[in-house]
Amino acid sequence: MLSGPPSKIAVALFSGFQALDVFGPLDALNILSYTNPLELYLLSTTLDPVSTIPVKTPSPGAIGQRLVPTHTYQDAPKDIEVLLVPGGRGTRDLELTEPVVDFIEATFPSLRFLLTVCTGSALAARSGVLDGKNATSNKLSFEWVMRQGPNVKWVRHARWVQDGNILTSSGVSAGIDMIYAFIADQYGEEAASQVATVSEYTRNTDSTNDPFDKAA
Amino acid sequence: MLSGPPSKIAVALFSGFQALDVFGPLDALNILSYTNPLELYLLSTTLDPVSTIPVKTPSPGAIGQRLVPTHTYQDAPKDIEVLLVPGGRGTRDLELTEPVVDFIEATFPSLRFLLTVCTGSALAARSGVLDGKNATSNKLSFEWVMRQGPNVKWVRHARWVQDGNILTSSGVSAGIDMIYAFIADQYGEEAASQVATVSEYTRNTDSTNDPFDKAA
Repeated sequence: MLSGPPSKIAVALFSGFQALDVFGPLDALNILSYTNPLELYLLSTTLDPVSTIPVKTPSPGAIGQRLVPTHTYQDAPKDIEVLLVPGGRGTRDLELTEPVVDFIEATFPSLRFLLTVCTGSALAARSGVLDGKNATSNKLSFEWVMRQGPNVKWVRHARWVQDGNILTSSGVSAGIDMIYAFIADQYGEEAASQVATVSEYTRNTDSTNDPFDKAA
Repeated sequence: MLSGPPSKIAVALFSGFQALDVFGPLDALNILSYTNPLELYLLSTTLDPVSTIPVKTPSPGAIGQRLVPTHTYQDAPKDIEVLLVPGGRGTRDLELTEPVVDFIEATFPSLRFLLTVCTGSALAARSGVLDGKNATSNKLSFEWVMRQGPNVKWVRHARWVQDGNILTSSGVSAGIDMIYAFIADQYGEEAASQVATVSEYTRNTDSTNDPFDKAA
Protein backbone atom coordinates (compact mmCIF):
# COMPACT_ATOMS: atom_id res chain seq x y z
CA MET A 1 0.00 0.00 0.00
CA LEU A 2 1.07 3.52 -0.71
CA SER A 3 1.71 5.74 2.25
CA GLY A 4 2.63 9.36 2.73
CA PRO A 5 1.25 12.21 0.67
CA PRO A 6 0.37 11.53 -2.98
CA SER A 7 2.83 12.63 -5.66
CA LYS A 8 1.26 11.57 -8.99
CA ILE A 9 -1.38 14.05 -10.06
CA ALA A 10 -3.47 14.15 -13.24
CA VAL A 11 -5.78 16.80 -14.66
CA ALA A 12 -8.69 15.83 -16.95
CA LEU A 13 -8.78 18.41 -19.74
CA PHE A 14 -11.44 19.05 -22.40
CA SER A 15 -12.24 21.93 -24.77
CA GLY A 16 -13.94 24.72 -22.88
CA PHE A 17 -12.36 24.01 -19.49
CA GLN A 18 -12.26 27.00 -17.14
CA ALA A 19 -8.68 28.29 -16.96
CA LEU A 20 -8.70 29.19 -13.26
CA ASP A 21 -10.30 25.84 -12.31
CA VAL A 22 -7.06 24.28 -13.55
CA PHE A 23 -4.44 26.93 -12.85
CA GLY A 24 -5.68 27.98 -9.41
CA PRO A 25 -4.97 24.53 -7.97
CA LEU A 26 -2.00 23.83 -10.27
CA ASP A 27 -0.16 27.04 -9.43
CA ALA A 28 -0.30 26.09 -5.75
CA LEU A 29 0.91 22.57 -6.63
CA ASN A 30 3.63 24.02 -8.87
CA ILE A 31 4.97 25.95 -5.88
CA LEU A 32 4.54 22.95 -3.57
CA SER A 33 6.55 20.79 -6.00
CA TYR A 34 9.73 22.77 -5.33
CA THR A 35 9.77 21.34 -1.81
CA ASN A 36 7.60 18.22 -2.31
CA PRO A 37 8.50 16.57 -5.64
CA LEU A 38 5.43 15.79 -7.75
CA GLU A 39 4.58 14.29 -11.14
CA LEU A 40 1.89 15.81 -13.32
CA TYR A 41 -0.10 14.30 -16.17
CA LEU A 42 -2.28 16.61 -18.28
CA LEU A 43 -4.84 14.39 -20.01
CA SER A 44 -6.92 14.98 -23.12
CA THR A 45 -8.49 12.93 -25.92
CA THR A 46 -5.53 13.78 -28.18
CA LEU A 47 -2.12 15.40 -27.70
CA ASP A 48 -3.29 18.58 -29.47
CA PRO A 49 -3.37 21.74 -27.34
CA VAL A 50 -6.65 22.10 -25.46
CA SER A 51 -8.47 25.43 -25.60
CA THR A 52 -10.42 27.10 -22.83
CA ILE A 53 -12.90 28.12 -25.54
CA PRO A 54 -15.65 25.52 -25.99
CA VAL A 55 -15.94 23.78 -29.39
CA LYS A 56 -19.67 24.40 -29.61
CA THR A 57 -21.25 27.86 -29.57
CA PRO A 58 -18.12 29.91 -28.89
CA SER A 59 -19.10 33.53 -28.39
CA PRO A 60 -17.73 35.98 -30.99
CA GLY A 61 -15.06 38.05 -29.25
CA ALA A 62 -14.46 35.43 -26.57
CA ILE A 63 -10.78 35.00 -25.82
CA GLY A 64 -9.06 31.85 -24.58
CA GLN A 65 -5.76 30.06 -24.14
CA ARG A 66 -4.41 26.70 -25.28
CA LEU A 67 -2.68 24.30 -22.89
CA VAL A 68 -0.47 21.41 -24.05
CA PRO A 69 -1.50 17.97 -22.70
CA THR A 70 1.08 15.34 -21.82
CA HIS A 71 -0.97 12.14 -22.30
CA THR A 72 -4.21 10.96 -23.87
CA TYR A 73 -6.96 9.36 -21.78
CA GLN A 74 -6.21 6.13 -23.62
CA ASP A 75 -2.49 6.19 -22.83
CA ALA A 76 -2.73 7.74 -19.36
CA PRO A 77 -0.30 6.34 -16.78
CA LYS A 78 -1.90 3.75 -14.49
CA ASP A 79 -0.36 5.14 -11.32
CA ILE A 80 -2.45 8.30 -10.98
CA GLU A 81 -3.05 9.03 -7.30
CA VAL A 82 -4.97 12.30 -7.54
CA LEU A 83 -7.32 13.21 -10.40
CA LEU A 84 -8.40 16.85 -10.71
CA VAL A 85 -11.46 17.55 -12.86
CA PRO A 86 -12.11 21.20 -13.77
CA GLY A 87 -15.41 22.72 -14.82
CA GLY A 88 -16.18 25.31 -17.45
CA ARG A 89 -18.54 25.89 -20.33
CA GLY A 90 -17.25 22.74 -22.04
CA THR A 91 -18.97 20.59 -19.39
CA ARG A 92 -22.30 21.46 -21.07
CA ASP A 93 -21.19 19.52 -24.14
CA LEU A 94 -22.28 16.03 -23.07
CA GLU A 95 -20.84 14.29 -26.15
CA LEU A 96 -17.45 16.00 -26.00
CA THR A 97 -17.03 15.24 -22.31
CA GLU A 98 -18.06 11.58 -22.57
CA PRO A 99 -14.38 10.43 -22.61
CA VAL A 100 -13.78 12.42 -19.41
CA VAL A 101 -16.79 10.82 -17.71
CA ASP A 102 -15.69 7.35 -18.83
CA PHE A 103 -12.15 8.02 -17.59
CA ILE A 104 -13.38 9.11 -14.15
CA GLU A 105 -15.51 5.98 -13.86
CA ALA A 106 -12.68 3.66 -14.96
CA THR A 107 -9.97 5.33 -12.87
CA PHE A 108 -11.79 6.13 -9.65
CA PRO A 109 -11.34 2.70 -8.01
CA SER A 110 -7.54 3.03 -8.18
CA LEU A 111 -7.36 6.73 -7.20
CA ARG A 112 -6.39 7.91 -3.76
CA PHE A 113 -8.25 11.20 -4.27
CA LEU A 114 -10.72 12.69 -6.72
CA LEU A 115 -10.91 16.50 -6.78
CA THR A 116 -13.39 18.53 -8.82
CA VAL A 117 -13.72 22.27 -9.26
CA CYS A 118 -16.89 24.13 -10.26
CA THR A 119 -19.01 22.18 -12.79
CA GLY A 120 -16.34 19.48 -12.86
CA SER A 121 -18.59 17.82 -10.27
CA ALA A 122 -21.22 17.41 -13.02
CA LEU A 123 -18.74 15.22 -14.93
CA ALA A 124 -17.97 13.20 -11.79
CA ALA A 125 -21.71 12.89 -11.11
CA ARG A 126 -22.37 11.56 -14.61
CA SER A 127 -19.72 8.87 -14.03
CA GLY A 128 -21.70 7.59 -11.03
CA VAL A 129 -18.84 7.88 -8.53
CA LEU A 130 -20.64 10.61 -6.56
CA ASP A 131 -23.80 8.55 -6.02
CA GLY A 132 -24.74 8.65 -2.33
CA LYS A 133 -21.91 11.10 -1.61
CA ASN A 134 -21.99 14.69 -0.40
CA ALA A 135 -20.77 17.07 -3.10
CA THR A 136 -21.05 20.70 -4.19
CA SER A 137 -20.64 22.76 -7.35
CA ASN A 138 -20.83 26.21 -8.92
CA LYS A 139 -23.69 28.23 -7.42
CA LEU A 140 -24.87 29.82 -10.68
CA SER A 141 -25.10 26.38 -12.37
CA PHE A 142 -26.32 24.43 -9.35
CA GLU A 143 -29.71 23.33 -10.71
CA TRP A 144 -28.20 22.07 -13.97
CA VAL A 145 -25.43 20.25 -12.09
CA MET A 146 -27.93 18.56 -9.76
CA ARG A 147 -29.74 17.14 -12.77
CA GLN A 148 -26.49 15.46 -13.89
CA GLY A 149 -26.48 13.39 -10.68
CA PRO A 150 -29.92 12.85 -9.13
CA ASN A 151 -28.49 10.34 -6.63
CA VAL A 152 -25.80 12.69 -5.32
CA LYS A 153 -26.32 14.40 -1.94
CA TRP A 154 -25.82 17.92 -3.26
CA VAL A 155 -24.73 20.49 -0.66
CA ARG A 156 -25.53 24.01 -1.83
CA HIS A 157 -23.98 26.04 0.97
CA ALA A 158 -20.31 25.06 0.87
CA ARG A 159 -17.06 26.53 -0.38
CA TRP A 160 -16.00 22.91 -0.83
CA VAL A 161 -17.13 19.50 0.42
CA GLN A 162 -15.02 16.51 1.41
CA ASP A 163 -16.68 13.09 1.53
CA GLY A 164 -14.11 10.37 2.07
CA ASN A 165 -11.52 10.64 -0.69
CA ILE A 166 -13.63 12.95 -2.86
CA LEU A 167 -13.31 16.74 -2.66
CA THR A 168 -15.67 18.90 -4.72
CA SER A 169 -15.49 22.68 -4.76
CA SER A 170 -17.88 25.47 -5.57
CA GLY A 171 -17.27 27.76 -8.56
CA VAL A 172 -13.93 28.66 -10.14
CA SER A 173 -11.99 30.48 -7.37
CA ALA A 174 -13.26 28.03 -4.75
CA GLY A 175 -10.90 25.45 -6.23
CA ILE A 176 -8.01 27.45 -4.82
CA ASP A 177 -9.37 27.22 -1.26
CA MET A 178 -10.04 23.51 -1.80
CA ILE A 179 -6.49 22.79 -2.96
CA TYR A 180 -5.07 24.61 0.08
CA ALA A 181 -7.26 22.45 2.33
CA PHE A 182 -6.00 19.38 0.45
CA ILE A 183 -2.37 20.48 0.71
CA ALA A 184 -2.77 21.18 4.45
CA ASP A 185 -4.35 17.75 4.95
CA GLN A 186 -1.89 15.74 2.89
CA TYR A 187 1.38 17.69 2.97
CA GLY A 188 0.89 19.52 6.26
CA GLU A 189 -0.34 22.91 7.38
CA GLU A 190 3.20 24.30 7.26
CA ALA A 191 3.47 23.45 3.55
CA ALA A 192 0.05 24.98 2.83
CA SER A 193 0.93 28.11 4.77
CA GLN A 194 4.24 28.44 2.97
CA VAL A 195 2.65 28.11 -0.49
CA ALA A 196 -0.01 30.68 0.45
CA THR A 197 2.69 33.11 1.62
CA VAL A 198 4.62 32.71 -1.63
CA SER A 199 1.34 33.19 -3.54
CA GLU A 200 0.25 36.10 -1.32
CA TYR A 201 -3.10 34.31 -1.13
CA THR A 202 -5.56 34.87 1.73
CA ARG A 203 -7.10 31.43 2.25
CA ASN A 204 -10.70 30.71 3.12
CA THR A 205 -10.04 27.79 5.48
CA ASP A 206 -13.68 27.20 6.44
CA SER A 207 -15.39 24.90 3.95
CA THR A 208 -18.81 26.07 5.19
CA ASN A 209 -17.98 29.77 4.59
CA ASP A 210 -19.67 30.22 1.20
CA PRO A 211 -20.14 33.92 0.38
CA PHE A 212 -21.70 33.08 -3.00
CA ASP A 213 -24.63 30.90 -1.99
CA LYS A 214 -26.77 34.02 -1.75
CA ALA A 215 -25.83 35.00 -5.29
CA ALA A 216 -27.61 31.97 -6.75
CA MET B 1 -7.73 58.76 -30.70
CA LEU B 2 -9.06 55.56 -29.28
CA SER B 3 -11.90 55.86 -26.84
CA GLY B 4 -13.91 53.46 -24.73
CA PRO B 5 -12.45 50.52 -22.89
CA PRO B 6 -9.46 48.74 -24.45
CA SER B 7 -10.06 45.47 -26.33
CA LYS B 8 -6.63 44.38 -27.60
CA ILE B 9 -4.68 42.70 -24.86
CA ALA B 10 -1.26 41.03 -24.98
CA VAL B 11 0.62 38.90 -22.47
CA ALA B 12 4.42 38.80 -22.46
CA LEU B 13 5.42 35.17 -21.86
CA PHE B 14 8.83 33.66 -21.07
CA SER B 15 10.03 30.32 -19.71
CA GLY B 16 9.45 30.16 -15.99
CA PHE B 17 6.46 32.52 -15.88
CA GLN B 18 4.20 32.05 -12.86
CA ALA B 19 1.00 30.31 -14.00
CA LEU B 20 -1.38 32.22 -11.73
CA ASP B 21 0.20 35.58 -12.64
CA VAL B 22 -1.12 34.92 -16.14
CA PHE B 23 -4.26 32.86 -15.57
CA GLY B 24 -5.61 34.82 -12.60
CA PRO B 25 -6.04 37.96 -14.72
CA LEU B 26 -6.78 36.06 -17.94
CA ASP B 27 -9.56 33.94 -16.47
CA ALA B 28 -11.34 37.13 -15.40
CA LEU B 29 -10.77 38.59 -18.89
CA ASN B 30 -11.95 35.33 -20.49
CA ILE B 31 -15.26 35.68 -18.62
CA LEU B 32 -15.44 39.41 -19.40
CA SER B 33 -14.96 38.68 -23.11
CA TYR B 34 -18.33 36.91 -23.32
CA THR B 35 -20.03 40.27 -22.76
CA ASN B 36 -17.21 42.63 -23.82
CA PRO B 37 -15.50 41.26 -26.96
CA LEU B 38 -11.69 41.20 -26.63
CA GLU B 39 -8.68 40.16 -28.66
CA LEU B 40 -5.75 38.38 -27.02
CA TYR B 41 -2.16 38.01 -28.15
CA LEU B 42 0.11 35.61 -26.25
CA LEU B 43 3.68 36.63 -27.03
CA SER B 44 6.92 34.71 -26.80
CA THR B 45 10.31 34.63 -28.50
CA THR B 46 9.14 31.70 -30.69
CA LEU B 47 5.80 30.00 -31.36
CA ASP B 48 6.86 26.95 -29.31
CA PRO B 49 4.80 26.28 -26.16
CA VAL B 50 6.12 28.21 -23.16
CA SER B 51 6.68 26.33 -19.90
CA THR B 52 6.10 27.61 -16.39
CA ILE B 53 9.29 25.77 -15.46
CA PRO B 54 12.37 27.98 -15.83
CA VAL B 55 15.04 26.93 -18.33
CA LYS B 56 17.86 27.41 -15.83
CA THR B 57 18.10 25.53 -12.54
CA PRO B 58 14.76 23.71 -12.67
CA SER B 59 14.19 21.86 -9.43
CA PRO B 60 14.00 18.05 -9.69
CA GLY B 61 10.38 17.07 -9.10
CA ALA B 62 9.09 20.51 -10.04
CA ILE B 63 5.94 20.31 -12.16
CA GLY B 64 4.76 22.82 -14.74
CA GLN B 65 2.49 23.45 -17.68
CA ARG B 66 3.03 24.58 -21.27
CA LEU B 67 1.00 27.36 -22.85
CA VAL B 68 0.77 27.93 -26.62
CA PRO B 69 1.72 31.47 -27.74
CA THR B 70 -0.04 33.16 -30.65
CA HIS B 71 2.67 35.57 -31.84
CA THR B 72 6.38 36.17 -31.45
CA TYR B 73 7.72 39.43 -30.01
CA GLN B 74 9.10 40.18 -33.46
CA ASP B 75 5.76 39.66 -35.23
CA ALA B 76 3.50 41.03 -32.50
CA PRO B 77 0.53 43.08 -33.71
CA LYS B 78 1.14 46.83 -33.52
CA ASP B 79 -2.28 47.63 -32.08
CA ILE B 80 -1.76 46.27 -28.56
CA GLU B 81 -3.63 48.45 -26.08
CA VAL B 82 -2.92 46.58 -22.83
CA LEU B 83 0.29 44.66 -22.11
CA LEU B 84 0.29 42.26 -19.15
CA VAL B 85 3.70 41.17 -17.84
CA PRO B 86 3.71 38.25 -15.38
CA GLY B 87 6.42 37.40 -12.89
CA GLY B 88 7.84 34.06 -11.86
CA ARG B 89 11.16 32.36 -11.37
CA GLY B 90 12.01 33.00 -15.02
CA THR B 91 12.39 36.72 -14.29
CA ARG B 92 15.67 35.91 -12.51
CA ASP B 93 17.15 34.83 -15.86
CA LEU B 94 18.34 38.23 -17.10
CA GLU B 95 19.50 36.93 -20.48
CA LEU B 96 16.34 34.93 -21.24
CA THR B 97 14.08 37.86 -20.36
CA GLU B 98 16.04 40.44 -22.37
CA PRO B 99 13.56 40.18 -25.32
CA VAL B 100 10.69 40.85 -22.87
CA VAL B 101 12.45 43.91 -21.45
CA ASP B 102 13.20 45.19 -24.96
CA PHE B 103 9.60 44.62 -26.02
CA ILE B 104 8.23 46.56 -23.03
CA GLU B 105 10.56 49.47 -23.80
CA ALA B 106 9.66 49.51 -27.51
CA THR B 107 5.92 49.07 -27.03
CA PHE B 108 5.21 51.20 -23.98
CA PRO B 109 4.85 54.54 -25.86
CA SER B 110 1.94 53.16 -27.93
CA LEU B 111 0.23 51.26 -25.07
CA ARG B 112 -2.85 52.54 -23.31
CA PHE B 113 -2.03 50.46 -20.20
CA LEU B 114 0.89 48.44 -18.85
CA LEU B 115 0.01 45.87 -16.17
CA THR B 116 2.54 43.79 -14.26
CA VAL B 117 2.02 41.02 -11.72
CA CYS B 118 4.52 39.95 -9.07
CA THR B 119 8.15 40.13 -10.27
CA GLY B 120 6.87 41.20 -13.69
CA SER B 121 7.55 44.70 -12.35
CA ALA B 122 11.26 43.82 -12.32
CA LEU B 123 11.10 43.34 -16.10
CA ALA B 124 9.24 46.64 -16.53
CA ALA B 125 11.78 48.32 -14.24
CA ARG B 126 14.69 47.05 -16.33
CA SER B 127 13.07 48.55 -19.44
CA GLY B 128 13.19 51.99 -17.82
CA VAL B 129 9.46 52.71 -18.19
CA LEU B 130 8.94 52.69 -14.41
CA ASP B 131 11.62 55.33 -13.73
CA GLY B 132 10.16 58.02 -11.48
CA LYS B 133 6.88 56.08 -11.14
CA ASN B 134 5.26 54.46 -8.12
CA ALA B 135 5.25 50.69 -8.40
CA THR B 136 5.10 47.56 -6.27
CA SER B 137 6.06 43.89 -6.50
CA ASN B 138 6.17 40.53 -4.75
CA LYS B 139 6.93 40.95 -1.06
CA LEU B 140 9.31 37.99 -0.73
CA SER B 141 11.40 39.24 -3.68
CA PHE B 142 11.11 42.95 -2.95
CA GLU B 143 14.80 43.70 -2.31
CA TRP B 144 15.86 41.94 -5.52
CA VAL B 145 13.17 43.69 -7.53
CA MET B 146 14.18 47.12 -6.16
CA ARG B 147 17.72 46.51 -7.41
CA GLN B 148 16.34 46.02 -10.95
CA GLY B 149 15.04 49.60 -10.95
CA PRO B 150 16.93 51.95 -8.62
CA ASN B 151 15.06 54.99 -10.06
CA VAL B 152 11.59 53.55 -9.44
CA LYS B 153 9.55 54.82 -6.47
CA TRP B 154 8.95 51.39 -4.96
CA VAL B 155 5.92 51.11 -2.68
CA ARG B 156 6.24 48.15 -0.35
CA HIS B 157 2.86 48.24 1.38
CA ALA B 158 0.39 47.82 -1.49
CA ARG B 159 -1.79 45.08 -2.95
CA TRP B 160 -1.33 46.94 -6.22
CA VAL B 161 -0.26 50.43 -7.32
CA GLN B 162 -1.62 52.56 -10.14
CA ASP B 163 0.52 55.42 -11.43
CA GLY B 164 -1.02 56.93 -14.54
CA ASN B 165 -1.46 54.16 -17.09
CA ILE B 166 0.78 51.69 -15.25
CA LEU B 167 -0.63 49.16 -12.78
CA THR B 168 1.79 46.95 -10.85
CA SER B 169 0.64 44.29 -8.41
CA SER B 170 2.17 42.50 -5.49
CA GLY B 171 2.82 38.73 -5.60
CA VAL B 172 0.93 36.12 -7.67
CA SER B 173 -2.67 36.26 -6.32
CA ALA B 174 -2.53 40.05 -6.07
CA GLY B 175 -2.77 40.14 -9.86
CA ILE B 176 -6.37 38.95 -9.55
CA ASP B 177 -7.33 41.90 -7.34
CA MET B 178 -5.48 44.23 -9.70
CA ILE B 179 -7.33 42.96 -12.78
CA TYR B 180 -10.68 43.40 -11.04
CA ALA B 181 -9.72 47.00 -10.22
CA PHE B 182 -8.75 47.48 -13.87
CA ILE B 183 -11.99 45.90 -15.13
CA ALA B 184 -14.03 48.07 -12.76
CA ASP B 185 -12.19 51.18 -13.94
CA GLN B 186 -12.32 50.48 -17.67
CA TYR B 187 -15.41 48.30 -18.21
CA GLY B 188 -17.45 49.43 -15.21
CA GLU B 189 -18.08 48.24 -11.68
CA GLU B 190 -21.09 46.24 -12.86
CA ALA B 191 -18.92 44.21 -15.24
CA ALA B 192 -16.31 43.62 -12.54
CA SER B 193 -18.94 42.57 -10.06
CA GLN B 194 -20.54 40.19 -12.57
CA VAL B 195 -17.21 38.52 -13.41
CA ALA B 196 -16.43 38.15 -9.69
CA THR B 197 -19.83 36.54 -9.08
CA VAL B 198 -19.31 34.06 -11.94
CA SER B 199 -15.83 33.34 -10.55
CA GLU B 200 -17.07 33.18 -6.95
CA TYR B 201 -14.15 35.45 -6.12
CA THR B 202 -14.07 37.69 -3.04
CA ARG B 203 -12.28 40.79 -4.24
CA ASN B 204 -9.82 42.86 -2.25
CA THR B 205 -10.91 46.27 -3.56
CA ASP B 206 -8.51 48.33 -1.42
CA SER B 207 -5.13 48.67 -3.08
CA THR B 208 -3.57 49.66 0.24
CA ASN B 209 -4.85 46.52 2.02
CA ASP B 210 -1.72 44.36 1.80
CA PRO B 211 -1.90 41.42 4.22
CA PHE B 212 1.50 40.11 3.08
CA ASP B 213 3.74 43.08 3.73
CA LYS B 214 4.40 41.74 7.21
CA ALA B 215 5.47 38.40 5.76
CA ALA B 216 8.50 39.96 4.08
